[in-house]
Amino acid sequence: MRVIVLGGDGFCGWPTSLRLVAEGHEVLVIDNLVRRAIADELSAPSLTPIVPVSERIQAGNELGAGQIGFRYIDIACDYPGLSAAFAEFLPDAVVHFAEQRAAPYSMRSHTHRRYTVDNNVTATHNVLSAIVQECPEAHLVHLGTMGVYGYKDHGAPIPEGYLEVIPRGSEFSTEILFPTDPGSIYHMTKSLDQLLFQFYAKNDSVSITDLHQGIVWGIETEETASDPRLVNRFDYDGDFGTVLNRFLVEAAMNMALTVHGSGGQTRAFIHIQDTVRCIELALANPPKRGDRVRIRNQATETHSVIDLARTISEIANVDITFLENPRAEAVSNHLSIEESSFVNLGLQPIRLKDELMHDVHRLATTYKDRVRREVILCTTPWNAKRAAAIKRGRLGTLEPPTPD
Amino acid sequence: MRVIVLGGDGFCGWPTSLRLVAEGHEVLVIDNLVRRAIADELSAPSLTPIVPVSERIQAGNELGAGQIGFRYIDIACDYPGLSAAFAEFLPDAVVHFAEQRAAPYSMRSHTHRRYTVDNNVTATHNVLSAIVQECPEAHLVHLGTMGVYGYKDHGAPIPEGYLEVIPRGSEFSTEILFPTDPGSIYHMTKSLDQLLFQFYAKNDSVSITDLHQGIVWGIETEETASDPRLVNRFDYDGDFGTVLNRFLVEAAMNMALTVHGSGGQTRAFIHIQDTVRCIELALANPPKRGDRVRIRNQATETHSVIDLARTISEIANVDITFLENPRAEAVSNHLSIEESSFVNLGLQPIRLKDELMHDVHRLATTYKDRVRREVILCTTPWNAKRAAAIKRGRLGTLEPPTPD
Repeated sequence: MRVIVLGGDGFCGWPTSLRLVAEGHEVLVIDNLVRRAIADELSAPSLTPIVPVSERIQAGNELGAGQIGFRYIDIACDYPGLSAAFAEFLPDAVVHFAEQRAAPYSMRSHTHRRYTVDNNVTATHNVLSAIVQECPEAHLVHLGTMGVYGYKDHGAPIPEGYLEVIPRGSEFSTEILFPTDPGSIYHMTKSLDQLLFQFYAKNDSVSITDLHQGIVWGIETEETASDPRLVNRFDYDGDFGTVLNRFLVEAAMNMALTVHGSGGQTRAFIHIQDTVRCIELALANPPKRGDRVRIRNQATETHSVIDLARTISEIANVDITFLENPRAEAVSNHLSIEESSFVNLGLQPIRLKDELMHDVHRLATTYKDRVRREVILCTTPWNAKRAAAIKRGRLGTLEPPTPD
Repeated sequence: MRVIVLGGDGFCGWPTSLRLVAEGHEVLVIDNLVRRAIADELSAPSLTPIVPVSERIQAGNELGAGQIGFRYIDIACDYPGLSAAFAEFLPDAVVHFAEQRAAPYSMRSHTHRRYTVDNNVTATHNVLSAIVQECPEAHLVHLGTMGVYGYKDHGAPIPEGYLEVIPRGSEFSTEILFPTDPGSIYHMTKSLDQLLFQFYAKNDSVSITDLHQGIVWGIETEETASDPRLVNRFDYDGDFGTVLNRFLVEAAMNMALTVHGSGGQTRAFIHIQDTVRCIELALANPPKRGDRVRIRNQATETHSVIDLARTISEIANVDITFLENPRAEAVSNHLSIEESSFVNLGLQPIRLKDELMHDVHRLATTYKDRVRREVILCTTPWNAKRAAAIKRGRLGTLEPPTPD
């Protein structure tokens, strides 16, 4: 299969690209390397020492099955470059990771908010436009997020994208896109993406799979662990480090685990190795042209933040500290997800409890000296109210804080 | 009240601005005059002879109640200019008309699709960002469209924005944003806007009214009719002329009325004078900060296209001709809308049957010589399938065509 991986230099994109090459596919990575630039902006380099992109690509080709190439293109700003690449490579499938993907980064300032909206919406729409223009048969696989739904309890598990409802006053039921209520600018852009996909599947018969992914954790995949030049980036800073990766680093450093608010937030999780496997499965099972968007839940387990913290606290023998929550979100929530269709396609999930200790150990033994403690905490408030709460100085309390 | 009208030089924006001035408000029009530029691009100038913007503004100030000013700003491209204008003028309210508003124009080419998405989403997001940054108390009034809903029958009238549903498997009902299923790139951008508003109302407590407007028709309002320099633009071309305005011009020219497909499409309508009145009422009734977005249906009657054609055909004694539909849309649909809350606020709607003859007569007597017949038809197909149907040469049939 000929696959273009947009954002193929990033945390999910790189291991996906390698897996596809290892499976014998022809891969073209398109990336503007902005994730590396943002790491510079934040003075928060990857914990793992990642090599320059050309070296990565060369090492990827030495995997010896398929082939991998690279094009430096900003897909939001350079539409002619993007569409020309599609026209030349003529992909069977396009995997789209090329969006600003950190909620805290999207909330840092008005400039970051506007960058995230402009970049993500324009990038996604350009991709759709280039597919219709240059390779209308290509299957688009997009990385969305469970976070678009906003963690409001609708009284039933979250299905895979579509919800059957009976409207008030109606005598029949109807199926709708599961209502979104995103909690950050970043999550909002993924919610906007959904509507772009709905339209292009309907109007132009584009074959689209949208993956509603949970929070990704984990350090390595089979391929990235096989050669130091193939190592994947690992972020633990307050903007790009997800909660579980933060806990893992804190545990490896013998620091107290930092919980935002009471830790009652329940979220969905998936290991990076399973992300890669899910994308392979999605690519092997495209919807027919003319079908509606195929939405799959790409998450393998759910946990509350406090339960995760307690688990890691026990196995690593570290304390837990409660911090004022910079986010505007519910103090706690229920989360129930319909089982992912990936299990029926053969996914055998990696479980947190089986892998956590390995990751803490690996971080503590291999990367501990590279940790920069000052970047770990997230200090970007979601709005004026949250900024005031943090300013009132409750940051660093040892007990769960009370909500506003 | 101090009101900024974004897109205040356009078809809805200009009469709104004049009305607000006539009522004694202080108005700042912000516009990049792109609507005039697009008329040049399409060789389709306004049927009515509109004067240069500076002359309009001067004449507006001679109305003698409030004051009106003008700033030339591209709000999608010049965020510093936009936010500086907000900071200087410190508006109590912002009325946002500054979006590319023609469905056919949004479907002309990949370039027009991308322009519409980029311009509309970025413009709306910049406005929200500038409000949070410079005037967080300001009330935002936005012109949305009934068209976001896509004319699928959900078995109950379309409420004002929010729908109570019982999800499958749930024991309780929940209220959601009425599901959207937009039928063009333009309509899709308004659907994206909704999610931006939902987020900014929730996260930053912006006071927002979103008006889901029907198809606007009519030539003039009290103010635009009072001085030739205040005349409003009137579009009848295949891109920017709405269906009713096209029929009015065709009737005035003694041409056959051109119906797309069978004419079974049922749509909502509102007169331009009522649009202006509704915006006044919306401005006088803002939602409290922290409340969810206030959504109002801004439409006063619904008709099928064929029924409209028959009515005008009778009063003006002209034929009807059926053309291949360039749009990908249902051949016919049911449309039922909950009564607009504007009626409770005092709106007394202008009815089509009372005003149609006046408009046909006014066009025939005053503007007939300016009509350019070659721009009337819409020939932009929605997708490859519609392009093929038009190419098969069914354009210009005299009987309702059969659907694909």
